[in-house]
Amino acid sequence: MYLMRIGAPGAEKPVARVDDETYVDLSDVVADFDEAFFESGGIDRVRPVVAERTEAGRVSRFAGERVGAPVARPHQILCIGLNYRDHAAESGMPVPDEPILFTKSPNTLIGPNDDVRIPRGSTRTDWEVELGIVIGRRTSYLDSVDEAREAIAGYVVVNDVSERSFQLERGGQWTKGKSAETFNPAGPWLATTDEIDDVLALDMWLDVNGVRRQTGNTRTMVFDPYFIVHYLSQFLVLEPGDLINTGTPPGVGMGLTPPVYLKEGDVMELGIQHLGTQRQHVLGPR
Amino acid sequence: MYLMRIGAPGAEKPVARVDDETYVDLSDVVADFDEAFFESGGIDRVRPVVAERTEAGRVSRFAGERVGAPVARPHQILCIGLNYRDHAAESGMPVPDEPILFTKSPNTLIGPNDDVRIPRGSTRTDWEVELGIVIGRRTSYLDSVDEAREAIAGYVVVNDVSERSFQLERGGQWTKGKSAETFNPAGPWLATTDEIDDVLALDMWLDVNGVRRQTGNTRTMVFDPYFIVHYLSQFLVLEPGDLINTGTPPGVGMGLTPPVYLKEGDVMELGIQHLGTQRQHVLGPR
Repeated sequence: MYLMRIGAPGAEKPVARVDDETYVDLSDVVADFDEAFFESGGIDRVRPVVAERTEAGRVSRFAGERVGAPVARPHQILCIGLNYRDHAAESGMPVPDEPILFTKSPNTLIGPNDDVRIPRGSTRTDWEVELGIVIGRRTSYLDSVDEAREAIAGYVVVNDVSERSFQLERGGQWTKGKSAETFNPAGPWLATTDEIDDVLALDMWLDVNGVRRQTGNTRTMVFDPYFIVHYLSQFLVLEPGDLINTGTPPGVGMGLTPPVYLKEGDVMELGIQHLGTQRQHVLGPR
Repeated sequence: MYLMRIGAPGAEKPVARVDDETYVDLSDVVADFDEAFFESGGIDRVRPVVAERTEAGRVSRFAGERVGAPVARPHQILCIGLNYRDHAAESGMPVPDEPILFTKSPNTLIGPNDDVRIPRGSTRTDWEVELGIVIGRRTSYLDSVDEAREAIAGYVVVNDVSERSFQLERGGQWTKGKSAETFNPAGPWLATTDEIDDVLALDMWLDVNGVRRQTGNTRTMVFDPYFIVHYLSQFLVLEPGDLINTGTPPGVGMGLTPPVYLKEGDVMELGIQHLGTQRQHVLGPR
């Protein structure tokens, strides 16, 4: 299944995408794709509904509705740093021995085509296409990496927008440069795990103003999604619906010579194979 | 007002403390002290109710109910690091030029007298008595430090429990050592700002097994609560009900010679003037 939320911010309707033109409306079956949905086995509950309605032709046509993030604001957004070897190199940092964890404020979550706003005082706002993991159940102290497969609801494209000066020059912890409003576009859809044959073979890319800036494939990740979920579960409790951004491949603005950062009027387009594409206009500070 | 939540975990009832023996039940007026409560001006709404019921003698007696955290699980728990000069010194770190921000998973929040559990693999679980700020309204880009006063709903005692090896030796970001389950006891009550004459003159203390370990006063903070709220609002959007742990005074276990860490069976007792006291038993790993 490909779960989506469409409609105005704060009033999104939960649907399942059938194809580019049509969807199954699930708003009579579930309130939202949120913590309660995942916790209560919502994916298994809506699966037969989607199959039955698709079969019966009970589908609706997309009519230009805004696309929201495919999950509601999560309990937490966790991020893994420097998780592609080449990106660590371009950042001038060593490949980590174990996953680097940092966080973003959950209210950074926006839809895949919503505007991204440069924060006040920013000089170095940057892009990062990433594979996002959505957690499917309450998860703590997994015994094995294999068990992590059962803890994952699905995958999503995210843009882990970052302000490099805030991240690296304002006091030593990265959160400060990761949490400005609009800094976490996600979607367009959540692909449940059964839709993705091999999560370690997904092409990913990001353009700014039509210029290809990032090209990568999940096969070059240092720590794969199962390793990450198992690892994190040793340190904290993952809640259903939690989002984990798994790191970015090479090509961020900070790594270019000379560096290139976002400015008002720029357009970011990005995507991951099977997970859809995003397009964000960049706004100036409020 | 002194807001409390009493009852079983996940089923706490919102009340206002009158004195050590009695409270006003507010469960017929508000669902919980959560984001929606603060966002909708809940404090101003319950204030006359509490006054009227107290006046009319419509109070209940505490009957040994469990005390929960005085606010529901927040959107985010933000923490300020090294915010007391003497604590920075004992940690062997310089006093920061600007607030150091890190985060804890929101699901670490527990009641003031709930058990604290040592995480698996821990060798260095430590204590930190702190003044917690609860945010009262959606807050972004405050123009002045003075405006921060209006953004604060009140204050609370927190124990920012920390695993030092996870925090400092496992990959460079502190979150990993701050987010284990039970790592954020809070309460017993939220004192609204009008109850605290001078938030920069509050004595604070923490004992382990009856031995005084931390003694401090908020007057030695490097960055005061108003500065912190104004500062954070430049980097991210604070939501109503968000909790900010403002740093700990000297006397953490890591700073002792030799260092002392928590072990199964220990008892932590801590408190801040006007904000009440906490008492936690320490459990071994699950």
